[in-house]
Amino acid sequence: MENHFSFIEHIEAKRDGRELPAEALRSIISRFTADEIPAYQMSAFLMAVLWRGMTDAELSAWTEAMLRSGDVLDFSDIPLPKVDKHSTGGVGDKVSIPLAPMVAACGVAVPMMSGRGLGHTGGTLDKLESIPGFRSRLDPDEFRGVLTEHGMVLAGQSETLVPADKRIYALRDASGTVPSIPLIASSIMSKKLAEDLDSLVLDVKVGSGAFMKDADSARVLAETMVRIGDAHGTRVKAVLTNMDQPLGAAVGNAVEIEESLDLLVGGGPEDLQRITFRLGAEMLVMGGVAPGLDEAEARLREAVDSGRALEKFGDVVAAQGGDPGALTDRSLLPHAAHEHVVAAPEAGWVAVCDALDIGVASVRLGGGRQKQEDDIDHAVGISVEAKVGDRVETGQTLARVAYNGRAELQAALPLLERAWEIAAEPVQAPALIIDTVAL
Amino acid sequence: MENHFSFIEHIEAKRDGRELPAEALRSIISRFTADEIPAYQMSAFLMAVLWRGMTDAELSAWTEAMLRSGDVLDFSDIPLPKVDKHSTGGVGDKVSIPLAPMVAACGVAVPMMSGRGLGHTGGTLDKLESIPGFRSRLDPDEFRGVLTEHGMVLAGQSETLVPADKRIYALRDASGTVPSIPLIASSIMSKKLAEDLDSLVLDVKVGSGAFMKDADSARVLAETMVRIGDAHGTRVKAVLTNMDQPLGAAVGNAVEIEESLDLLVGGGPEDLQRITFRLGAEMLVMGGVAPGLDEAEARLREAVDSGRALEKFGDVVAAQGGDPGALTDRSLLPHAAHEHVVAAPEAGWVAVCDALDIGVASVRLGGGRQKQEDDIDHAVGISVEAKVGDRVETGQTLARVAYNGRAELQAALPLLERAWEIAAEPVQAPALIIDTVAL
Repeated sequence: MENHFSFIEHIEAKRDGRELPAEALRSIISRFTADEIPAYQMSAFLMAVLWRGMTDAELSAWTEAMLRSGDVLDFSDIPLPKVDKHSTGGVGDKVSIPLAPMVAACGVAVPMMSGRGLGHTGGTLDKLESIPGFRSRLDPDEFRGVLTEHGMVLAGQSETLVPADKRIYALRDASGTVPSIPLIASSIMSKKLAEDLDSLVLDVKVGSGAFMKDADSARVLAETMVRIGDAHGTRVKAVLTNMDQPLGAAVGNAVEIEESLDLLVGGGPEDLQRITFRLGAEMLVMGGVAPGLDEAEARLREAVDSGRALEKFGDVVAAQGGDPGALTDRSLLPHAAHEHVVAAPEAGWVAVCDALDIGVASVRLGGGRQKQEDDIDHAVGISVEAKVGDRVETGQTLARVAYNGRAELQAALPLLERAWEIAAEPVQAPALIIDTVAL
Repeated sequence: MENHFSFIEHIEAKRDGRELPAEALRSIISRFTADEIPAYQMSAFLMAVLWRGMTDAELSAWTEAMLRSGDVLDFSDIPLPKVDKHSTGGVGDKVSIPLAPMVAACGVAVPMMSGRGLGHTGGTLDKLESIPGFRSRLDPDEFRGVLTEHGMVLAGQSETLVPADKRIYALRDASGTVPSIPLIASSIMSKKLAEDLDSLVLDVKVGSGAFMKDADSARVLAETMVRIGDAHGTRVKAVLTNMDQPLGAAVGNAVEIEESLDLLVGGGPEDLQRITFRLGAEMLVMGGVAPGLDEAEARLREAVDSGRALEKFGDVVAAQGGDPGALTDRSLLPHAAHEHVVAAPEAGWVAVCDALDIGVASVRLGGGRQKQEDDIDHAVGISVEAKVGDRVETGQTLARVAYNGRAELQAALPLLERAWEIAAEPVQAPALIIDTVAL
């Protein structure tokens, strides 16, 4: 009863806009994780947080308490700077896959923990599992072993890391309390800070295919995460990037691995190249192995051109049980049985190539999940051939759809047919990199 | 899953400040009452309501849905106007007890359903149960029988009336979502409107001992309830009355019955008389048996002076199993073993006689409940002898404390010793009746 009553006082304080002391926030996290606070009190508290927000002091204490709710990694025995990159999620965002080996090949360790796709956003782990044999579920010793030997690892988050986040996220999802900046920021940052990083680069997506629809709210989220990092003693830099249209051309799983491989051999779509090299350069600079972004980009380019980045990726794929032969012989990757072409109904300039519609279409093809327990089809996907600003003629291909089931295609087509808008006048391509946020 | 998902949409709509359609509100009430909505979703919704409020249309639909969650009474066979009075709760507020027989003696039926005390506010049922044998728990047939025969009844709310309110209230109490004007107003009004009233008089208390601490918020609550009544087709008038200090002198249970009896024989404290006659007069006017407040007060006075009001009370007490002899022979009422006098530490004028402190002191003596399941001691109580504006000399009695246990007295004394503030200059007694609200 004591616990019960004092938690009500905390709910009331937050409800009434009063700042909670760090001790109260720590006790809320530890008691909720220990099943000592009922969900019906916690969800009311979360709604009050969504309403009233959190001060920097509250948010720092809250994030630290989440982070300490489970194991905290210690990679101090690895004598390299440790830098990770996290994206808030988008459509066609396969950046992590070519980025990690490029950065690791330049001497910065990347202990990357990724997630699975849910809704219209894809997941790095799902994409990687297109590679035959690849295991994204590593136990802590395996994770440390791959990271120590190869300077990088690409795996799912351990069950023992930040258990408070799993529980709070499930409750937020069921109680309408997801879109709270402090709750989003603490969820992301508690997991990243538990990785024992020296620095972190955040790719905060802005636009129709992103969680943050406008630059102002994305900037607030970015600033919030940067301040949490600072309070923890971890340098964080956020890059705001456009997600009104898919990143690169490929949207799906195996198709995104193929595009990642294009990047690792020096090719790939220009927008994907720009963001990957920029984020990688930020990581090298923060990791202290390059003095500035230009020098850093040159080193990343050299890692690609020399083949060291692709070799690094092959080594890690092999270390995680995957077939590295699939990285050079793409016939070993899954391919869908059929192809459908989405053609331009009229001539003009592409004004909209909607990331959300294309992301949802990919889910309907079977390439993503509506619910967490859904299976996915790694072979299906969409190749976008016309993006905002491009000139198209009537009948020109806007996208190629790789599909396996007729019903799935039929479900996806209405979205693909409305995803493009074609204007009679030339359209300016949007700025890809919108802003950066750091302290 | 369908239900689950659509409720999330309702939570999101309320969270984002959008108006919910009546159908959505009806379905929330009926599904929550049927255990089809988990408490952790409902508490988040209630916090969103506390944050965003409800429009008049929402509140009317919500209250109607609550009211229809259980049985709705039908007293159309009773050929009298049916008018009830409800108080939002205070300290020393025994008005219902003398009021109901006075009004019933004038030809207006009073189907009064009352509650028990919780926290610093006393409950009419607890007070009535000081009378040996009195039963406040009547089944629906008994309730109707007493009302039909005597034109009044004083009982607890039937379990089958407004079950949604019991469930929602328990969740509000546990989730920090009590102080929401729409939720308070709908809780009160759903129960009162289920009584099949023609009219309702509300006594909205304002001050330290009341739920509403200031006149502005009390006025908003009053206006909200009046509008709910209007939408339902029931005339409602609210009277805002002062609750900075206890009403009358007696605070407890048996002591409040004694003071109620004083009123029924033409005596009692002046403030209690004024409020009781005023609320009773409003009821007679709304019931159509008197043309105006002056005439109505005169008729109430005549009911008291003639002994008809006391006789009515005796008949109802007897009909509900109580000993009517206790109404004239007060030795049959419970009395505490000991008395302690709280004396003025200095001379001057009483500036504060704090209702909340005195109410909590009564609870600590054993006369009230901290938790719903607590037992109470009907004999203990406090008699207030100096109220705001009164001149007191050093050592003069401020209050007499009737107690049974030394430990209970010791727990109560610190509150009683701080409840009075004495000023060096004369102090004006506060306005007793602050305002009235009606359409």
